[in-house]
Amino acid sequence: MILITNDDGYQAKGIGVAVELARQFDHVVVVAPDGARSGQSSALSVNMPIVYQTIRKDADVEIYACSGTPVDCVKLAFSGMIPGVERPKMVISGINHGSNSSINVIYSGTMGAAIEGCLYGVPSVGLSICNHDLDADFSHVLEPFRKILADVYQNGLPMGVCLNVNAPKSGEIKGISLCRQARGQWSEEFMASPTPRGYDCYWLTGKFSNVETGTTDTDEYALQNSCVAVCPVHTDMTHYPTIELLAKRYD
Amino acid sequence: MILITNDDGYQAKGIGVAVELARQFDHVVVVAPDGARSGQSSALSVNMPIVYQTIRKDADVEIYACSGTPVDCVKLAFSGMIPGVERPKMVISGINHGSNSSINVIYSGTMGAAIEGCLYGVPSVGLSICNHDLDADFSHVLEPFRKILADVYQNGLPMGVCLNVNAPKSGEIKGISLCRQARGQWSEEFMASPTPRGYDCYWLTGKFSNVETGTTDTDEYALQNSCVAVCPVHTDMTHYPTIELLAKRYD
Repeated sequence: MILITNDDGYQAKGIGVAVELARQFDHVVVVAPDGARSGQSSALSVNMPIVYQTIRKDADVEIYACSGTPVDCVKLAFSGMIPGVERPKMVISGINHGSNSSINVIYSGTMGAAIEGCLYGVPSVGLSICNHDLDADFSHVLEPFRKILADVYQNGLPMGVCLNVNAPKSGEIKGISLCRQARGQWSEEFMASPTPRGYDCYWLTGKFSNVETGTTDTDEYALQNSCVAVCPVHTDMTHYPTIELLAKRYD
Repeated sequence: MILITNDDGYQAKGIGVAVELARQFDHVVVVAPDGARSGQSSALSVNMPIVYQTIRKDADVEIYACSGTPVDCVKLAFSGMIPGVERPKMVISGINHGSNSSINVIYSGTMGAAIEGCLYGVPSVGLSICNHDLDADFSHVLEPFRKILADVYQNGLPMGVCLNVNAPKSGEIKGISLCRQARGQWSEEFMASPTPRGYDCYWLTGKFSNVETGTTDTDEYALQNSCVAVCPVHTDMTHYPTIELLAKRYD
């Protein structure tokens, strides 16, 4: 069984493409949000319960829509609470409509779900393309994404590591590039907007910049050069060199 | 200026303790959620605008309550949208009522906010104690937390690294321990509960287990041994060894 989720909701075009790719390998179970959950990171529904609905139950594909976050969906799928849904052999999150490269991995609900699969010890992959369009064209990523998924399905991933896979918006894919997370930065992040109550409200917006120039080993560089960027993501966030640095300072 | 936020809301006892610690060093600006936002990780308010209210504006402490997530609060503070609130010299998130050790760093709104401060290039510290009680006693952590904050305020932190600081629930603190994130696991994560609509809903719950036995260099070990656990957390989530591993597999 392959578990598929996303942060755009079970009706999004991208998750349908992921289902078509995954059913070439195994039985597919979709447990995905019942609507848009972008920017949800690894958020949990702590203060309210979640519910789910069975959308479809065919011989090779089952689809459940969940009221929670992407991570809630993964937790629910692993919980044994949905009859017949067992521990998957692989978790796929996406295909997300929009990039999750660079520091966006930190905010991404797509990647939150992939990280969650990884925490359960199951090989997990987040898939995204640099196109927010609801009707985005995915034809150029079918072959590279299929290749990446086939490799993970057959060979697994190191414990505690999942993949953040991002593809260019369109055009011919020149290759699959293994890379690190680029250092990036958001600026001009809020737009003030008047309300009828007399105070302003603030909409999240912003401009993303890749602050690295001259480096060629990042996900941003790969995307700019028509490659699919594969960045291995670690669930151990410890920065080991700083342990030693601070041990000296605290002495 | 020191920016303080949390995920328990601006009225929580723990953030008040953080304010008292921080005002020994500098002018304090609190931009914190207007209520509980536990388990919000690095979630953003993407689909609705946020608002804020001025709660207090004294000579040395300003407090603003924000309708968004912990990360929204940090972004708002850095945005220049709140008159007079400028780029801080340090970001403190907490003191959280409840542990954020081990893999809980991934779900923690407290740590989401600390990571956000770090992404802006400002030394950032998340502070938590292993006590969910709204009226938790913080007296045993005042001295070790003051020491850690003083060091970060004076000496900074490496770029891209923030601190996840967790303290035992109570009792004498034997020392400050520099450590790595323990491997942990949640199980039995949902409680099914009937609804009047005829279907069940599911409340997040669960049991946390430290899956490491025999290791002495983890945050869980430090906490079990009456030490304050300081784990350096990296915003670069890349797992570098896997880049080489997969490059060979994709050849």
